Formats: sequence, structure tokens, C-alpha cells
Amino acid sequence: MTTIQTRVLSGFMELLPKDQIAFNQMMDTIRSIYELFGFVPVDTPAIERAEVLLAKAGGETEKQIYRFQKGDNDLALRFDLTVPLARYVSEHVHELSFPFRRYHIAKVYRGERPQKGRFREFYQCDIDIIGEGDLSLVNDAEIPSIIYCTFTALGFSNFIIRINNRKILNAFFQTKLEGQSGEEVLRVIDKIEKIGRDAVVNELLSLGLNAEGAEQVIEFVSLRGEAAAVLVKLKERAIANPQYEEGVRELELVTQYVTTFGVPSENFQIDLSIARGLDYYTGTVYETVLNDYPEIGSVCSGGRYDNLTAYYSDRKLPGVGISIGLTRLFYQLREAGIIKPNAATLARVLVLPVMDDIRPALLIAARLREAGIKTEIYLEEDKLKKKMRYASTVGVPYVVLVGEEEVSSKTYAVKNMVTGEQQKLSLESLISLLLR
Amino acid sequence: MTTIQTRVLSGFMELLPKDQIAFNQMMDTIRSIYELFGFVPVDTPAIERAEVLLAKAGGETEKQIYRFQKGDNDLALRFDLTVPLARYVSEHVHELSFPFRRYHIAKVYRGERPQKGRFREFYQCDIDIIGEGDLSLVNDAEIPSIIYCTFTALGFSNFIIRINNRKILNAFFQTKLEGQSGEEVLRVIDKIEKIGRDAVVNELLSLGLNAEGAEQVIEFVSLRGEAAAVLVKLKERAIANPQYEEGVRELELVTQYVTTFGVPSENFQIDLSIARGLDYYTGTVYETVLNDYPEIGSVCSGGRYDNLTAYYSDRKLPGVGISIGLTRLFYQLREAGIIKPNAATLARVLVLPVMDDIRPALLIAARLREAGIKTEIYLEEDKLKKKMRYASTVGVPYVVLVGEEEVSSKTYAVKNMVTGEQQKLSLESLISLLLR
Repeated sequence: MTTIQTRVLSGFMELLPKDQIAFNQMMDTIRSIYELFGFVPVDTPAIERAEVLLAKAGGETEKQIYRFQKGDNDLALRFDLTVPLARYVSEHVHELSFPFRRYHIAKVYRGERPQKGRFREFYQCDIDIIGEGDLSLVNDAEIPSIIYCTFTALGFSNFIIRINNRKILNAFFQTKLEGQSGEEVLRVIDKIEKIGRDAVVNELLSLGLNAEGAEQVIEFVSLRGEAAAVLVKLKERAIANPQYEEGVRELELVTQYVTTFGVPSENFQIDLSIARGLDYYTGTVYETVLNDYPEIGSVCSGGRYDNLTAYYSDRKLPGVGISIGLTRLFYQLREAGIIKPNAATLARVLVLPVMDDIRPALLIAARLREAGIKTEIYLEEDKLKKKMRYASTVGVPYVVLVGEEEVSSKTYAVKNMVTGEQQKLSLESLISLLLR
Repeated sequence: MTTIQTRVLSGFMELLPKDQIAFNQMMDTIRSIYELFGFVPVDTPAIERAEVLLAKAGGETEKQIYRFQKGDNDLALRFDLTVPLARYVSEHVHELSFPFRRYHIAKVYRGERPQKGRFREFYQCDIDIIGEGDLSLVNDAEIPSIIYCTFTALGFSNFIIRINNRKILNAFFQTKLEGQSGEEVLRVIDKIEKIGRDAVVNELLSLGLNAEGAEQVIEFVSLRGEAAAVLVKLKERAIANPQYEEGVRELELVTQYVTTFGVPSENFQIDLSIARGLDYYTGTVYETVLNDYPEIGSVCSGGRYDNLTAYYSDRKLPGVGISIGLTRLFYQLREAGIIKPNAATLARVLVLPVMDDIRPALLIAARLREAGIKTEIYLEEDKLKKKMRYASTVGVPYVVLVGEEEVSSKTYAVKNMVTGEQQKLSLESLISLLLR
């Protein structure tokens, strides 16, 4: 009868309940850590004026954006949460308190060619700290401590937050390059993990560097490791350039404070190859990798920028922030078998009426819910076997049977669906068991 | 310098942090009640194929929908969460367990003419229970108990859930109307609260009813009140029509179970004027009104439908569900002064370094966060006065000062920002105070 295609659109993620529950748990964890660090929620419309979104965007963004007319309005779906933040802060600057620490967890849209692990609609989980005029560099050190707490809370321990400073790279390229654009070199460097050293050398040569220059660039950006040791090497180079010296000073201060904030030394390092191609980063930059799954790439990236609202206002509002691309991260972790969804229900208990009068079962369920226990009742008139199959399919931890005998004895048969163990308990004991 | 318009688009809600916090608290409360009743989360893409969304929609929907081409795809933004649910269930029917109880809290889009209290992007908070083949009528009684718990948890007590059954209305109109469409009459009836009795009579006359018929319709749909009393009147009418009898029987059973589920009698009634114009409702229908704010209209509506997926599959999947239009509700409650946003921060405490070396303050903050206390640190090098002004502007409940004296005595000055009371506490006592 039907000819309407019900498959979800290509490039869009849609999950079954058990995966959705696991996804939401990750999102809740991230949100709770962001709130623990004193960030406030902001929610902006998914639709913006196209001119707002495209104020600074390059050709790639313009191609990917979902853009449409409605009435006289030239509209588009946001492709990140940073541009909407800039618009929001510009608009409400007199109503906000600075430093403004906001988190935003929401979907963004990019109509890129669909490929494995790439999505056209995906969740970003962003935090940014925006200062008015100035913003202390110590904020740049607090960010890695938030990354550390977030990934620890998500259950990871073997990960590394890689820190760099764009001023160091910029100054190095200024000193070493003749005529070539530092920006172009940065973009090439940024691909080193993806395309490998040799390919990067070739691209550098094609940018006009000679073999020696390319070699020097590669050698420089290969510097990485424990912060203090790398800082010694950076100082030894003694590149006489004020921007270089400032960058090294900033990186030193930031990494020292990262330790004060309680991030263990095995979870962060300086890595001179971290460039973050986006041209709005001006100082500290971050990437985060899970050591056991390097193929996933960076799971949390960001950095410091001089002026959030350059395109919309004359004020100077520097900031520092990070973003977790949750949809892609979830997809990769699930593909790698790291996420193993548990139950297809959030209920702690399923109440099964096993007598004609279902009212006693409804009363039990009401009491359990009053006690704060997530409770589902099976209301259909099916055979017990079908009811139990439902319980084990969705993976509910406990089943309570309410029949004539239970009602007259006021003790209820509860089955632990994992162990198979069954016992008869008073309502009070049942509640204690389920609250455990 | 700038000419880019940064104001949020007309018809789109954008909140400042203190309102956003209040909004999110409402959303979290709704979600927690939905989960308490054993519903599982589902999240579908905001973008669907236009043919999916428009499979059954009428002219109004087609005019309001945000529709656009991307590549070869004719796409649109969802205008509700029910059509995407139908598409989702059709697609994943073999992977879902029935009865399928899902909740979905997300934004939907309708490009209607903006007016006060109407939004083009708004949150809906939906639950639906979908059966396979059949769905027990007791589910229709559990829904009002969920509405009751939700609005109680949101802080309301003086509200009424109005219940009706479309079969009763359909049968009554079949018996009383000659030639006129019951659907048309329903649509008119649905407006009685908005446009008043006289206007409804006029519209009924223009549909072709005579004065007596219009009077009978009005009199019938004016029946409302305590369930048992209204049921007596419905039975007295003894309209000899099997659909009428079935409707009355269903309404009786549903309202009896509503009581069993624990909904106090002052919070629900039968109201024959509730029609829910949407033609997919086939049995029980609900509306909910806040008695103190009748001008807001229904804050939670829904009903029973025979077949969720009629447009996409041959299976019979009956369901019952409700929706809360949270954006509009929040807007109306705030306009009415019912919602009074509290602080512009979620932090329980703001740590203020008041010495050059800020490291002790960072350590204190880290300890508070370890204890699960939402903690913000003021990292900027500002005067104490400015720091305290920030604290009182955002409305953080406590401020902890960390200076030389505090560090050497290991007791920390904590100020209650509401009472102004200040005391010196050990870290341990400070944690206990803040956890309170």
C-alpha cells in the first residue's frame, strides 16, 4: 500500500531505545560536568539569518549549509554553536555578566557528502568563557581540567589532552618561511596525523618551501611530550621574536596551572603539531585523543580566540572554549565496541498484574512511583509467558507479580531478571530493594 | 561598523541565562516524570523528507512548513513529534518491543504568522504508548495520572484534566445532524472557549443546522463536571447508537481507573466540549487547564488514535498520547508572573581569590567540585568590589574568599549572599554547608 520511504535520511543518526538511552547518559554526564564547573545553559534557535551565519564563513561552509527562503527571510540552519554564541552575546551584551561561562548542547547541521562516521545533523557539546575586554590566561588552564573531568566521568582513563599555542607556531613560521603564508602551512600541518609525514612534506614543498625548510617545519611540529621537558626545548631554540616568547610564556603558565587544577601529568602534554586549522584561534589550542583508539581522532578540541564578536560588534570580547562532537563520538565508540548498550528501558521494575482485577497492581505501581522508583506497568491482557518475554527483551532489572495470593498475603513476588532469583516481600521491603 | 542584524528572528524564543535555567528546570521535571512512568527516550532528526511530513497534512500545515531542497532531496523541518514517531515506528517495527512507551522532548517548527505567545520554533514534550494490534483502555486512564504528576511536580495544584470520548460526540452528531459533517461541527465546537457560545451558534447555523439543532448541540457539549454525575446524564439520554454506548462505556471505565491511579477527583472531570479538532483522534481525548489562568488555554492535550502508522504501513498500531507545548507554556507563565526566575547561575558557590597567588583558591575549588558542589571560580584580576558585584548580579548563594589569612589558618570565609551572614569554616565544614 505504502510508497513513502520511511528510512531515516542518509547522514542522519537515528537510534533504537537502548542506544538512545546510552547516548543520553553520555549527554547527561557531559552536561553535569559542565554545570559542576559553573557554566550556565544557553539555547539559541536552530534557524538564523543566513547573513549572520555566513558573515565570516568560507566557501566550504557556504556549500554545506542548509539555506532556505521563508517569506522575505533568507534563513539557514546553524552549522556550529560558536557563531550563534557570537550573535547571542552581541545582542545581549548589556544583559549578561562577564566573565560569561555558557554551555550549549544542541544539534547543528552540515549538508556534507555523507560518509562513514560523518553526519549531517549532529550534537555539539560546547563550553565557552567570554571576557569583557580581557580574560585571564588561567581560564585556558581550567579548560583542560574540565576536559579531564568530563572524559573521566564518561569512563575513560587512558586519554591525552594535547596543548599548544598558536603564537608559537605563527612566530616560528614567520621566522622560517619566506613569502609563504603561515595559515597555509598550518592547514597542512593540521593533517599530519591523518595523511602522514611524507604527504605533509610533499604538500609543504608544493607550497614553495625548500626541502630544508620543510624538514625544519616537520621537526619543529614533531616536538611533543611532558610539558616541562618540551618547554625547555622551546626555550633552547631562543627564536628572537616577541610573539614566540609570548607564546612560550603563555604555554608555560597554562600548563603549570593545568597541574594545579589537578590534571594528572599522564593526561596532558604539549604537542606542537596541534594547529586547529580554524583561523579564529589566536593562542592556546587543544585536542584530546583516546590512546586506545587513535583512529577516532580528536574527541574534544578548542582554543582561545581574541574576539568572539568581531563580525557583529565593536567590543572586544576574548574567549576560550571547547567542543565535543557527541554524535560522531558515540558512533565511533559504538563501532569500536566500547559502548555496550544495556537495557531498552529506564524502568527499574515492571509490574505485572496476574489476576483479572488489575487495580491492586495499579496501586502498587503508584506506591513505587511515589517512592521515586521508575516503574512500568504491563496493562495488556496477554499470557504470562508473553509478559515475561517483554520483560526480558527490554531488559528491566526486576519484575513484580501481583496476583490474588499476593494481594491477600500483602507480600509480592519479585524476580531479579539478571540472577533469576525470586522472593516474596512486603511493599516496604520491595521499595527498599528497588531503591538500592 | 556592523550592519548585520543580531536580533533573534521574529517568532523565535531566546532566553537570558536566568530564564533559560528556569525553562530547563521545567523541562527536566517533565522528563523525570515521563521516566518515572517507564517511558524511554527517542530522538529523531529535525529534518525529514517532505513527503513523509505531508503524507496526511492539510493545507495549513503545508503553508506553515519550512521546506527546502538540498541536492536531489525535497526536505522539511518537522512540525510536530507525532508524524516522526509514526515514521520511526514504521521503520523500526521489528526492532521495537510493544507496548512501546516513548517520550520525545524536542523542537518543532511552524512558520506561522508570528503573534504574541505563538512561536515558529518551540519545544514539545510528548509521550505516546503504542500497542501492536490492540492497546488496553487502561492506558487511557494512566495518561491523566501522568498529567497529574507532571503538573503537580511543576508546582501546580489548581488544575483540571478534562476528559471526553470522540465516539460519544461522533454518535451524537450522527443522530442529530442531517447531512452536515460531524467533523465540521467538531471543529466549531472546539472553539467554544475561545470565541464564546453565541459565535459558535452562528457558525453552526452557517453549517446548515437549524436553530433547534444548534441549541441541542450546544446543550450537549455543555455537559461537564464530576465524572460519575455526567455519566449518569449520558446514560439517561439513552441514544440508541452502538458507537454512543461504546463511547460511554469507555469513558466510564477510563474515569474509574483514573481514580484508581490516584488522581484526586478535583483534578479531573468529564467535559463534553473537548473535541480536539485533529481528525486522527478516535476515542479518549484530553485537555488540561490551569484554573487560575484559563486564558492560557489547554496546557496539555492529546488522546487515543486507532492507527499511528496508517500512512506508512499496513500494520494496525493503536496508541494514546499527550503533548505539552513547553515554549508557549513557559512564555505564558512568565508573562502571568507565575514563573519568577531565580539566579543567573547554577553554581552553588563562587570562589574568589583575594591574594596574588591564586593556586590555593584553585585547590579549594577542585575539592568542592570533587564533593559534587557546582563551583565557579572568579579568575579575573579585578577589585574585590567588582568581584562581589558579579556574585550578587548572577545571584550565587555563597561566596568563599581565599586570601593569605584563610590559607594560613586553613579556615575559609564564606558569605551567605541572601542573609549577608559571614563565617569562617574549615574545608570540611564548608563542604557540609554547601551540600545542605
